Amino acid sequence: MRALVVGGAGFIGSHLCDALLKEGNHVVCIDNFSLGTKKNIEHLEKNSRFKVYETDATELSGLCRVFAEERPDYVFHLAANSDIQASGSKPEVEYKNTYTTTFQILSCMREHGVKKLFFASTSAVYGDKRDVLLDEDTAGLAPISYYGAAKLGSEALISAFSYMNDMEALIFRFPNVIGPRLTHGVVFDFINKLRKDPKHLEILGDGRQTKPYIYVADLVDAIMRFKDTRQPGVTLYNVGAEGETGVTRIADIVCEEMGLDHVRYSYTGGEGGWKGDVPRFRYCTDKIHAAGWSAKLTSDEAVQRTVRNNI
Amino acid sequence: MRALVVGGAGFIGSHLCDALLKEGNHVVCIDNFSLGTKKNIEHLEKNSRFKVYETDATELSGLCRVFAEERPDYVFHLAANSDIQASGSKPEVEYKNTYTTTFQILSCMREHGVKKLFFASTSAVYGDKRDVLLDEDTAGLAPISYYGAAKLGSEALISAFSYMNDMEALIFRFPNVIGPRLTHGVVFDFINKLRKDPKHLEILGDGRQTKPYIYVADLVDAIMRFKDTRQPGVTLYNVGAEGETGVTRIADIVCEEMGLDHVRYSYTGGEGGWKGDVPRFRYCTDKIHAAGWSAKLTSDEAVQRTVRNNI
Repeated sequence: MRALVVGGAGFIGSHLCDALLKEGNHVVCIDNFSLGTKKNIEHLEKNSRFKVYETDATELSGLCRVFAEERPDYVFHLAANSDIQASGSKPEVEYKNTYTTTFQILSCMREHGVKKLFFASTSAVYGDKRDVLLDEDTAGLAPISYYGAAKLGSEALISAFSYMNDMEALIFRFPNVIGPRLTHGVVFDFINKLRKDPKHLEILGDGRQTKPYIYVADLVDAIMRFKDTRQPGVTLYNVGAEGETGVTRIADIVCEEMGLDHVRYSYTGGEGGWKGDVPRFRYCTDKIHAAGWSAKLTSDEAVQRTVRNNI
Repeated sequence: MRALVVGGAGFIGSHLCDALLKEGNHVVCIDNFSLGTKKNIEHLEKNSRFKVYETDATELSGLCRVFAEERPDYVFHLAANSDIQASGSKPEVEYKNTYTTTFQILSCMREHGVKKLFFASTSAVYGDKRDVLLDEDTAGLAPISYYGAAKLGSEALISAFSYMNDMEALIFRFPNVIGPRLTHGVVFDFINKLRKDPKHLEILGDGRQTKPYIYVADLVDAIMRFKDTRQPGVTLYNVGAEGETGVTRIADIVCEEMGLDHVRYSYTGGEGGWKGDVPRFRYCTDKIHAAGWSAKLTSDEAVQRTVRNNI
């Protein structure tokens, strides 16, 4: 197939390009290189089945030119602002990079008759429902971050576009994704802070924030496994790993893997790491388990493996 | 209070301006006069507590100027494309007029510290769940129209902005609203068609589409009653009238009220009036009833009253 990966030079997107190429597909990567990097895809440059466009997916005309030229039969949409903390003071970033990208991609698909879509959604669409085991049928979705809002809005667009244009869309809602090529987030931050000061670690919040972390290779494995839904409309899965990992536990794992003893932790206090952060949640992945898939690494193992890969 | 009504020259917005002025408030109306009309508000022109700006709420700078000048303490957001059938072939209309208006209004509120919002949402956010009694906790919202998608995306934005900026937002999801100053929809169409040809009426679909219709005066009464939520975050209600009215029943009521006998009906066929139309749904209004409010007119009475007011 001819796959178009929007955000293909990003953290998850670049791993997906690797997997799609490995399966024998032609892969066209679009990225504006704001968060994605050329380094993430430089090892693919010589692959004749791989092509890159430096294109901003918020701009319809440029995006449509790629569709016209490349005639993809599957679009993997991973273009978004992925730094929730950063957009807390700039909601317009989510309007543009998370919502508008989705609208323009769907508009191009509609225009060019492309029927298959994968969309990277997020646990942030649920909002702060800390005492609920979150499954795909959880009601009352109430995002507390601009990122979660733009992703939920994107899901709504996909629902309407797929109905109106007979598309088949696969939506994965995933929690924190970690692994090689990570660009931000708690694991990334702890490694960098401890490199600068191996005796002291400042931890945002009270350290009791507890979330599931999924290893990027597991996530990409799930995308590859389920990408051909053969179902009209939207097919939705929560995709996560077993268990959750607390922030202080992450600090312990990072210190251990970096061989650091007696590191002093200090906490900035408060429940969440920042405003808009959901401090803890639990994720029900029964649906995707019932479909025969589960993550190889637990949440704790994902953290451990990520530290090993990034130090 | 100083109320800012965005979309204040529209069908529902102009009735809301009337009610807010009657209660003694200062009312600033913003409209781009694309669907709203000067005729809808001409009777208010001499009221010293009423002011109109011809401003497009999709443009941040113009909108912010009005906020800076007028310093509203409550925003009523009724600016949207309201013609779902028309936007079926132009999704960009919903992106711009329904979603972007919401984003820009929220951005201005955030910038200027305005904390109170009313938002006009819709039953279209639920999608086609014809066998479910739709209540506020119904899960799996899956809009089938671009309009419903843009409204659900707007609700998601309001959820995040209200959390991040300590706003109080009242959201009403309402079904078809009818009454004086109506600009489109089945009742409006039937009257116009029968004026042109009093012997024959073409009905879109199979005539069995059945929905609740609420009279605009009832809806505005509910807005006025619940506008001061005094609850942080989002307060959400389904707002509807008793019962549902089938399309063939609407035809009968219109013919009867227009004094027409022996009108021949022909049906274009199919379940919905057009693609993206939810052919039938039932609406649970228990929550707002429990809060002490119910519509004065049933769905059938709303249709009857609307025909009398429009012929």
